[in-house]
Amino acid sequence: MYRYKPVLRIPGPVPVPNEVSLQMAKPMINHRGAYFKEHYPAVLARLAPLFGTKNQIHMVTGSGTAGMEVAVSNLVSPGTPVLCLVGGFFGNRWAELCKAYGASMHVLQFAWDGGVDPGKVSEYVKEHPEIELIFMVQNESSTAVLNDVESVSKARGNHSALLVVDAVSALGGTPCEMDAWGLDVVVSASQKCLMTPPGTAFVAFSPKAREYSAKCQASRYYMDLRLYDRYMEKSETPFTPNIHNVFALEEALNMIEAEGLENVYARHILMRDMMRAGARAVGLELLVKDEDASPTVTAIKYPNADGFRARIRERYGVEFAGGQGAHANNIFRVGHMGYATPLDVLAALAVLEVDMKRYGQATQAAELVMDA
Amino acid sequence: MYRYKPVLRIPGPVPVPNEVSLQMAKPMINHRGAYFKEHYPAVLARLAPLFGTKNQIHMVTGSGTAGMEVAVSNLVSPGTPVLCLVGGFFGNRWAELCKAYGASMHVLQFAWDGGVDPGKVSEYVKEHPEIELIFMVQNESSTAVLNDVESVSKARGNHSALLVVDAVSALGGTPCEMDAWGLDVVVSASQKCLMTPPGTAFVAFSPKAREYSAKCQASRYYMDLRLYDRYMEKSETPFTPNIHNVFALEEALNMIEAEGLENVYARHILMRDMMRAGARAVGLELLVKDEDASPTVTAIKYPNADGFRARIRERYGVEFAGGQGAHANNIFRVGHMGYATPLDVLAALAVLEVDMKRYGQATQAAELVMDA
Repeated sequence: MYRYKPVLRIPGPVPVPNEVSLQMAKPMINHRGAYFKEHYPAVLARLAPLFGTKNQIHMVTGSGTAGMEVAVSNLVSPGTPVLCLVGGFFGNRWAELCKAYGASMHVLQFAWDGGVDPGKVSEYVKEHPEIELIFMVQNESSTAVLNDVESVSKARGNHSALLVVDAVSALGGTPCEMDAWGLDVVVSASQKCLMTPPGTAFVAFSPKAREYSAKCQASRYYMDLRLYDRYMEKSETPFTPNIHNVFALEEALNMIEAEGLENVYARHILMRDMMRAGARAVGLELLVKDEDASPTVTAIKYPNADGFRARIRERYGVEFAGGQGAHANNIFRVGHMGYATPLDVLAALAVLEVDMKRYGQATQAAELVMDA
Repeated sequence: MYRYKPVLRIPGPVPVPNEVSLQMAKPMINHRGAYFKEHYPAVLARLAPLFGTKNQIHMVTGSGTAGMEVAVSNLVSPGTPVLCLVGGFFGNRWAELCKAYGASMHVLQFAWDGGVDPGKVSEYVKEHPEIELIFMVQNESSTAVLNDVESVSKARGNHSALLVVDAVSALGGTPCEMDAWGLDVVVSASQKCLMTPPGTAFVAFSPKAREYSAKCQASRYYMDLRLYDRYMEKSETPFTPNIHNVFALEEALNMIEAEGLENVYARHILMRDMMRAGARAVGLELLVKDEDASPTVTAIKYPNADGFRARIRERYGVEFAGGQGAHANNIFRVGHMGYATPLDVLAALAVLEVDMKRYGQATQAAELVMDA
């Protein structure tokens, strides 16, 4: 019905501001030329406050998963004992990546509707002094859970394991304090809270992680951190980068800096609280408790959610995300990250309210599309 | 002097037509939604004539090197005997990639100013029946040599080795007949003759290569062909793709199809011939003999070439590429691939002619910039 103006309310890729999109159409430049050598390190420096780090940040042309694999392929040798903290689809992705690199696997499973429990991590690593690397997700977008990375980091106590964090759907939407929290690797990507088209991952290694990676035996080339370090000396990337993502990110950072990072984080909290209060008010049940709730995406229980989503897309032009893994077809997820405002949340809630009035929480929503 | 209108005459990334650039600014879409599922397989099907293949083509978000590593990481197990045909920087990249994956290395070195000799390949593989994979470059842009891939393929005779071809700076500018020539893997990328911004690699595997890759022991995830195959069943990519490169490529293919592929190839040949005749006419020496000359880039000898290039950039706004590896600072390279016309070649030649009249072939060109 309103499909001529689609509204993307998924947890990435997010709508890109026009100002940012237009940067993608700039004329081509030489990635070994003066302009790139000026703008590339400049944009990385502007990302530093979002990472909360003085460590070198690298851009790798690829998806967020490519960024995760940069971490794994520079750290995990065959047989390396790793601990993956899994409470959703992306925690599970860490486990799949580590398995693919022949790690000696330890996996702590958490329920797919809550956060990682730092106490359990603390117990586990005490019993397993051999663990060298811990992998976790800051914002588990599949369940709409924000994990407490700082507490997990502290839960290591004196244990020497490095902590590797997927901040793909978190960075820029919620604080990440890599240095203050003692994180060893942080990975993110362009197409979430950074409001930039997909195509680039960001990776930062602590000095400890860099030192540890020097002895890594994994086969790697495109993702070899040493090449990125070497080329960074001349303000270049080792391989032809997604040049226009640099331009786009500059514009996105203009907007983030103009708003102020603290205000950006507060806006995400407000959107989270609005979305949750509104969903409850129309009689829907949230997947996640308040204390674990993500500021960038909200998961709402709904039987036959995929049929419901099709109806919402059809009638209002609004695209919600479905459930993943254990939650396929029994939740829907509303993205409110990056280029999203409280007004966008109000619009999403209005759609929910109108739809609930008309259909209630229908279990055969797919059929109802036909009547609409 | 004319830097306000920069002219990119490098062998990639190439200037992108405005029509194509503007596609990069389109609104964001869901890469798991209906629009992508329609356009993604459609654009891959339109690439098939450029690859000369009925094999499935995949898009991988990354640079051309990422595409090369998709080949290596899905084929090369530790100890796999491989033969790399090296006559330049990118042939050497195959060797570096294979080494990174622990291959048992065989390298045939060819002079960095000529093509791969199919006769030598024939002899070598006869003496080494154990070789399982041969890696070569179709268009060695570092030396401006077009290798005769078809003859190398035939030179294998009855040898069972698979042939893996880097067609990054060739595909779309010169014929590639994957199926007719019996090539097993062909790799290319968006930012060369395909006139699309960088960020995407293309990879096609023959049925034989696919079967061979099934037993590959290399660690891989982001580049795992099996995941790309599995997601292709639902017309998706396993990881968030560079969505806008799909839109851009569609527009670029509109232009290529409107001109006609044969005409595109003929235009590249004409540009090659013009560039070579013109360079000779102003008294410059070509790096490569006529029979080995690339249709997409021309290499010209010039002492202290980097100083000369700086002057040309400074005075005329024209950016030539430098030499790589063995040819650093002693050649310059003129790209004439993709969105380039005979008129662009005339302009490049005019610049050379004017500069040669004023300075001759100065050996201290860098200093002359100061006088300019």
